[in-house]
Amino acid sequence: MTKSAAIIGGGVIGGGWAARFLLMGWDVRVFDPDPEAQRKIGEVIDNARRSLPGLSDVALPDEGTLTFHSEMSDAVAGVAWIQESVPERLELKRKVYQTLQAHCPRGAIIGSSTSGFKPSELQGCATRPEQIVVTHPFNPVYLLPLIELVPTDKNAPEMVEAAKGILTEIGMFPLHVRAEIDAHIADRFLEAVWREALWLIKDGIATTEEIDNAIRYGFGLRWAQMGLFETYRIAGGEAGMRHFIEQFGPCLSWPWTKLMDVPDLTDDLIDKVADQSDAQSGHMSIRELERARDNNLVTILRGLKAQDFGAGALLNAQDKRIGAPAEMPADLSKRVTTIRRAIPLDWTDYNGHMNEARYLQAFGDATDKLMEIIGCDADYIASGGSYFTAETHIRHLDEVHAGAKIHIETHVLEGKGKKMHLFHTMLAGERVLATGEHMLIHVSLETRKASEPAPHIATALGALADGHASLPRPDGVGKAIGTR
Amino acid sequence: MTKSAAIIGGGVIGGGWAARFLLMGWDVRVFDPDPEAQRKIGEVIDNARRSLPGLSDVALPDEGTLTFHSEMSDAVAGVAWIQESVPERLELKRKVYQTLQAHCPRGAIIGSSTSGFKPSELQGCATRPEQIVVTHPFNPVYLLPLIELVPTDKNAPEMVEAAKGILTEIGMFPLHVRAEIDAHIADRFLEAVWREALWLIKDGIATTEEIDNAIRYGFGLRWAQMGLFETYRIAGGEAGMRHFIEQFGPCLSWPWTKLMDVPDLTDDLIDKVADQSDAQSGHMSIRELERARDNNLVTILRGLKAQDFGAGALLNAQDKRIGAPAEMPADLSKRVTTIRRAIPLDWTDYNGHMNEARYLQAFGDATDKLMEIIGCDADYIASGGSYFTAETHIRHLDEVHAGAKIHIETHVLEGKGKKMHLFHTMLAGERVLATGEHMLIHVSLETRKASEPAPHIATALGALADGHASLPRPDGVGKAIGTR
Repeated sequence: MTKSAAIIGGGVIGGGWAARFLLMGWDVRVFDPDPEAQRKIGEVIDNARRSLPGLSDVALPDEGTLTFHSEMSDAVAGVAWIQESVPERLELKRKVYQTLQAHCPRGAIIGSSTSGFKPSELQGCATRPEQIVVTHPFNPVYLLPLIELVPTDKNAPEMVEAAKGILTEIGMFPLHVRAEIDAHIADRFLEAVWREALWLIKDGIATTEEIDNAIRYGFGLRWAQMGLFETYRIAGGEAGMRHFIEQFGPCLSWPWTKLMDVPDLTDDLIDKVADQSDAQSGHMSIRELERARDNNLVTILRGLKAQDFGAGALLNAQDKRIGAPAEMPADLSKRVTTIRRAIPLDWTDYNGHMNEARYLQAFGDATDKLMEIIGCDADYIASGGSYFTAETHIRHLDEVHAGAKIHIETHVLEGKGKKMHLFHTMLAGERVLATGEHMLIHVSLETRKASEPAPHIATALGALADGHASLPRPDGVGKAIGTR
Repeated sequence: MTKSAAIIGGGVIGGGWAARFLLMGWDVRVFDPDPEAQRKIGEVIDNARRSLPGLSDVALPDEGTLTFHSEMSDAVAGVAWIQESVPERLELKRKVYQTLQAHCPRGAIIGSSTSGFKPSELQGCATRPEQIVVTHPFNPVYLLPLIELVPTDKNAPEMVEAAKGILTEIGMFPLHVRAEIDAHIADRFLEAVWREALWLIKDGIATTEEIDNAIRYGFGLRWAQMGLFETYRIAGGEAGMRHFIEQFGPCLSWPWTKLMDVPDLTDDLIDKVADQSDAQSGHMSIRELERARDNNLVTILRGLKAQDFGAGALLNAQDKRIGAPAEMPADLSKRVTTIRRAIPLDWTDYNGHMNEARYLQAFGDATDKLMEIIGCDADYIASGGSYFTAETHIRHLDEVHAGAKIHIETHVLEGKGKKMHLFHTMLAGERVLATGEHMLIHVSLETRKASEPAPHIATALGALADGHASLPRPDGVGKAIGTR
């Protein structure tokens, strides 16, 4: 049986909830008096359809059904979950709960997306306060897993467990906030940073862009994977969290921020922090934490590099500065060295051994470089022509590990008309790791069909193919799988 | 000519600087009175050798030479850069500069790693204050690009530009902090969050682990790519940054943090923030920013998934919950559906078209699934046996885009002795996208040589091969490149 959820209040947050429930197989019933609601929620769901399903390496359940309802009473009929994301006005929220509770199932969970209100405030005038909890999400709701789940004593433990179960089912991480407080947990940090940022702008110290760069090129990369305390535990080294606090304790009384309402750093508080950190991360040595951190950072940085964004764009600019230029070699009779690089951590599995798909990634990079060399560069591709790979034959001959330096030598077997037939050899020093034989076809990016390359490309490719014709035919060329 | 840098004070920060200079081709001369310095710096450099070179898709310069010096005067002889990372005591730092400047070249740049001191404080008693600037890094220094470069009026503009040039050359992003201030920029945010976090722990609201999770499953993922203001600009929607501030302005006076020393939100300040945000991000529409953010988030989340860490570990747990179990099919005469999934954003290029290496990644996943099905699972691999791919033949038959649902049907062509010969067909609905023919060999993970599989695996694989023997031989099997 498909479960159903009511979304009360669309917009970016309500739309994000709708998308998550829908794409995880729930029917979704929306109530929002905004005449634009359908369009706005549709846009959020479009974004989610593009990004969420591919996060999983398995198929998600079939999408549920999305319906819009002009009456709240209708929207909440028979649902298991009601998510309220109306504007942040307590009176409005309380009125919504009154209406809701007159019509919804008694067993339904009512979650509020409120950033600031405490659950006891929301439960205040409700008919059945025990149905209402805070379930505070983070934008984009369809991608970020964090939900702050804040109950009160009025909520039965079984109801809180049921809420956690449903949130987990739709791919979220319910962080059970055990004591209610204004703005819960995460938004307290966001608010502290926001306040300090406004000071920096007001005082003319930094602009919005400088502040963003100070975050995303530095500690933002750390916080995407380990947060505050595990990161500082590493900074404390083998001496641990206690050492870190003792070292940085004095700063609390210094004007390192304008926000000077600080707690006293008593022995009690130091013990609490150190003990909690031991409980959290004590199962890993500092060296293990460092390696996990570095694996994560390399993975994040290289991911951003593929997107050419943030810290990844910096790395691309660096590669452009130090990489060899793409130009026809002086000696056309020799294989072209298309790639020289080290094997990155994110190309290897937990054994440090390169994954099979990354061999093809390296060969694909070698092909791209050869294309650039013959003039099939970004400008040419933008003008509408390119080569697509039709066929690939890889022989894996030896293993290679993270950090190893490799290079790829490229032999042009044929380069005539629409065809480009390449043979790449991947080496670590003298050791042959793999060969890649590739047939590429020149295509028109408009028709997506085979087409002749521009004359300057045909000429350059032909010159390489002619030059390479006198090279010995590589071992393994033209072989089918399993033939030697 | 190789350039050289002096590292004054080792430890984690000095060691990180040493690693960066060294791996980017500089000679590095270390002075640190700690008898353990050589070991400690060596450990940091080991971590850096493992992670830094592979960040680049091109070869880095050859490593420089690392030397240790027992006299500071000797360490700084002839260097272009001196990085001071001694403990955070102003008197100590000043004494170090006195000694340094008696021996170092007049043209050398002296950068201080200080987190808190202003450059004018450091320049205070120096012989040549114009040589000294703050260059504040973030741990791990060999991976995080941010450097806060804080000069004073005493530093010539040419010197500041030269410092930026060198920092960029070694892969860093020099953030020029135009007005000196305690703790520069980034550490002010870290300090604000630290203060608020200590309150939460003291008040028993959250533990260190809950706080880390509140960061790394939520806004930490946003900050790794866009920082604070660009993220909030998106939250403001088409109405922009001004709308966002107007909406969240009132919270400034609410107890959303214990840090209540807030700036007045005057019209002037609102204008400043909104104008700066326009200058920073106004070249992209909100829709474009959303898509860039989602691409980045998917990339980061899937990267963390590959590391099975943080938010990525949550996704793996979800896949395990909803994925099909790995079990022998009831009907052995049909191809096995090994993969059902959607194409993720990080498998596609800027056109949304799947990259060639990701075809092999999907085929590799299909092979892994088939291995699991026949009993070659994590436990078996841990016991020392596995299959390695020896050869692969891929035919790319049609394009596929992000979000498309694909499945892979696997035909076992042969499964006898050490050999496993598979033929995967990738489909989107009825449309054949690609085929992958793969020869795998069973290996002992100890000897890394071919070996017989365990009997239960041989039996299961044999049963599939026998069942599939009556299937029509797939089109394209056993073909060499370029033959039809």
